[in-house]
Amino acid sequence: MKNENVRRMPNIQTQFGKSVRRLRFKRDLSQEALADLAGLHATYIGRIERGRQNISLTNIGKIARALKVKPGELFKGVH
Amino acid sequence: MKNENVRRMPNIQTQFGKSVRRLRFKRDLSQEALADLAGLHATYIGRIERGRQNISLTNIGKIARALKVKPGELFKGVH
Repeated sequence: MKNENVRRMPNIQTQFGKSVRRLRFKRDLSQEALADLAGLHATYIGRIERGRQNISLTNIGKIARALKVKPGELFKGVH
Repeated sequence: MKNENVRRMPNIQTQFGKSVRRLRFKRDLSQEALADLAGLHATYIGRIERGRQNISLTNIGKIARALKVKPGELFKGVH
């Protein structure tokens, strides 16, 4: 049960990042390999996984595609 | 970035926008009411629903919260 303030939204980036990392491990990909597949930078993937990046919808789509999942799959465990 | 064609990227913004609109109707909310609940502007909600906005993860979280769904629910029907 989350009850944090809507404006602060502290958790979604962290939760999303963990989800990306979990799926990347599942595919046995390095951050660099995922970055290549998604057409993004490895440092950017690192920032996402550490919950430091407020990623955009189109980049969510690129990562989902690179991981061969639907975008919604990246939101499992994100509340 | 928005119109970049990465591996036949289907229009994720359009699909996501339809999903937001569908859930907003389900909650019987106007764009203005949803905007107020989410702490965003009504014009921004309109842009999202028309697939014109490359929304960020934190704003996805705000809209999900305002619609009382998990963020993943917004990605049903998004491929």
